[in-house]
Amino acid sequence: MINEQYKKMLEGKSVIRQLSEFATGRGKEIGYENVFDYSLGNPSVPVPEKFTEVMMDLLKNKSSMELHGYSPSLGIASVKEKIAESLNKRFDMDYTGNHIFPTTGAAGALAHAVRCVTKPGDEVLTFAPYFPEYIPYINLTGAVLKVVPANTENFQINFEKLEEMLSEKTTALLINTPNNPSGAVYSAQTLTALAELLNRKQKEYGHDIFIISDEPYREIIFDGMKAPYVSKFYDNTLSCYSYSKSLSLPGERIGYVAANPRCTDAELISAICGQISRGTGHNCPPSIIQLAVAEVLDQTSDMSVYETNMNLLYNELISLGFECVRPGGTFYIFPKALEDDAVAFCQKALKYDLVLVPSDSFGVPGYFRMAYCIDTEKVERSLPALRRFVKENY
Amino acid sequence: MINEQYKKMLEGKSVIRQLSEFATGRGKEIGYENVFDYSLGNPSVPVPEKFTEVMMDLLKNKSSMELHGYSPSLGIASVKEKIAESLNKRFDMDYTGNHIFPTTGAAGALAHAVRCVTKPGDEVLTFAPYFPEYIPYINLTGAVLKVVPANTENFQINFEKLEEMLSEKTTALLINTPNNPSGAVYSAQTLTALAELLNRKQKEYGHDIFIISDEPYREIIFDGMKAPYVSKFYDNTLSCYSYSKSLSLPGERIGYVAANPRCTDAELISAICGQISRGTGHNCPPSIIQLAVAEVLDQTSDMSVYETNMNLLYNELISLGFECVRPGGTFYIFPKALEDDAVAFCQKALKYDLVLVPSDSFGVPGYFRMAYCIDTEKVERSLPALRRFVKENY
Repeated sequence: MINEQYKKMLEGKSVIRQLSEFATGRGKEIGYENVFDYSLGNPSVPVPEKFTEVMMDLLKNKSSMELHGYSPSLGIASVKEKIAESLNKRFDMDYTGNHIFPTTGAAGALAHAVRCVTKPGDEVLTFAPYFPEYIPYINLTGAVLKVVPANTENFQINFEKLEEMLSEKTTALLINTPNNPSGAVYSAQTLTALAELLNRKQKEYGHDIFIISDEPYREIIFDGMKAPYVSKFYDNTLSCYSYSKSLSLPGERIGYVAANPRCTDAELISAICGQISRGTGHNCPPSIIQLAVAEVLDQTSDMSVYETNMNLLYNELISLGFECVRPGGTFYIFPKALEDDAVAFCQKALKYDLVLVPSDSFGVPGYFRMAYCIDTEKVERSLPALRRFVKENY
Repeated sequence: MINEQYKKMLEGKSVIRQLSEFATGRGKEIGYENVFDYSLGNPSVPVPEKFTEVMMDLLKNKSSMELHGYSPSLGIASVKEKIAESLNKRFDMDYTGNHIFPTTGAAGALAHAVRCVTKPGDEVLTFAPYFPEYIPYINLTGAVLKVVPANTENFQINFEKLEEMLSEKTTALLINTPNNPSGAVYSAQTLTALAELLNRKQKEYGHDIFIISDEPYREIIFDGMKAPYVSKFYDNTLSCYSYSKSLSLPGERIGYVAANPRCTDAELISAICGQISRGTGHNCPPSIIQLAVAEVLDQTSDMSVYETNMNLLYNELISLGFECVRPGGTFYIFPKALEDDAVAFCQKALKYDLVLVPSDSFGVPGYFRMAYCIDTEKVERSLPALRRFVKENY
């Protein structure tokens, strides 16, 4: 019989997808180049040339069985070792290949990490604003997602509310820094305070509380800064990464879970993920993609366009009177809407062909998200529309 | 806290994997070419040249965003349509692209199909002998796998036992034809009888009973025959396919679920699979692999070697006095062991560097499996060892 739980989910329509469909439809009328579509987080810069070269080289020079044969269910050993080495060098960690479990992007990483450190009924806390897909991602594992209200002053952590919500039932925190949608990067101070609190609570409850750290935007950081590496601050951390953004290949579904070598059962995490895979049908990412990404681990696409776009938008928004926390990274910005009802605000913006996403589904009412992973030229052309929208309505 | 269910699963060691490890170890002593390793179902023939050409062509000629950007979560529309067309042409079906949900191989297809038509606690029946991974694949979805005893006469279906085991709780049957490990291909007569029984039981129970048809060996058929297409016989069928065997690319993880256009909620199955993906972290197979496979749908690797190997082994086994059902397809053969204890039998064979898999984990005691997806030259060299093994022990 058709599973009613999943069938019911079809009734809920993603706001982002609806907006994106509007943008596509409107694009057919006036040309997509004239729709200022800030709805989707689809990277616009090309994959590094080296990635394409490595793919071609693998296809030319490896034997079919070597290249396309079954890879070990825990991932290709040489790939895992290279990922570990790259992380060790960049973040002063001491991973071995055994701490790395290659996955199909961050979604795959989260599906494994959550099942690894929770059982059905356990509570996972996350922080508003948050990526709306966290709700099905977590709840469909059987764990229960709870949202800690936002600290709208700077989108760091609201520690008072967090402490209220932590309980015996909490076995994991899901954090996302740099953050979609706010662009905030958790400071070393925030992460130190978080680790201190969790270490205290672990003792109090007598059980582990893991941080599941969702880090697909880790390499998109502005002002020449570096994002503090979460796992460096707290031992019980599973870092969930995707190369989707840093290498601009979201379609190729490649990422990993990296277990902190000092976390509980660190040496078993990768093997436990392998067991979880049997139920999710994961069975490791494609061999050729694993092998190709392993050769470009320390590269990124040219992501300077995101910082250029952020500065253009931030400056314009501030000069138009918006309240806005300046993003430290990502390709998102999350200003306060000019009226309480963000949905109404974004609806009005559509008349100016500005596709903005209301913040309600991110767990904070009254804001909106702009995804500026688009050409700078288009951002520039959108500014007069933004000005007209504000002047004529507020 | 680390999930104890998955942690405990680490204690169970796969017999096949242990044997494969033995083969690798022994290979280091005497040269792997001298170990007659019949343990693993890893295709030995190369991917079709056209696949490699298409991959190169995509890398050279498609823009980075077109090639590596997010693909729709239900799969690339043009790919789905091509798969539908190919199935329609070959099996006289009337799929549209909307009935096809691309997955990461058959494991991914099963993970979606089972969740789609069962809820936790529902019973899924399968037939011995069966692929041992079915146990975690099914049970980790929350459904409960039950095994119908084998019909050892010809490895078709034991209908008497099946009818005894069908109950109100049964919402799906998981079948695998051509079968791993027996090599049996369900006849049109078997499938007709199965459909008749299930249609009757659906009426009796007042609910759907789906066939989940696991078909990775569909194209490996001997004697110029074709495997009857399961979905043609029974409307409530979800066909789960993998290109791993037919195109020799198990590492690239590509397959699909195809919902019979006359099954319950046929137009929703693909969308429901998309919802299931959010919990499993699947989010569709890699774009480049989807696009490349779509250009070689009607091709296969040169699989004639499997038939050559089957005939060599079958004839030798029969002349040595083994009881053995002649395989109609796959690259497996499943003879009766020469003593009741198949584990002891296979243990003795190891002394002759013959790596055979005892049948216990396939749900039938007293048999053994040989995976003959190896070079014919090696099969030939293994025959004297097989003869010596039998003569010196039985």
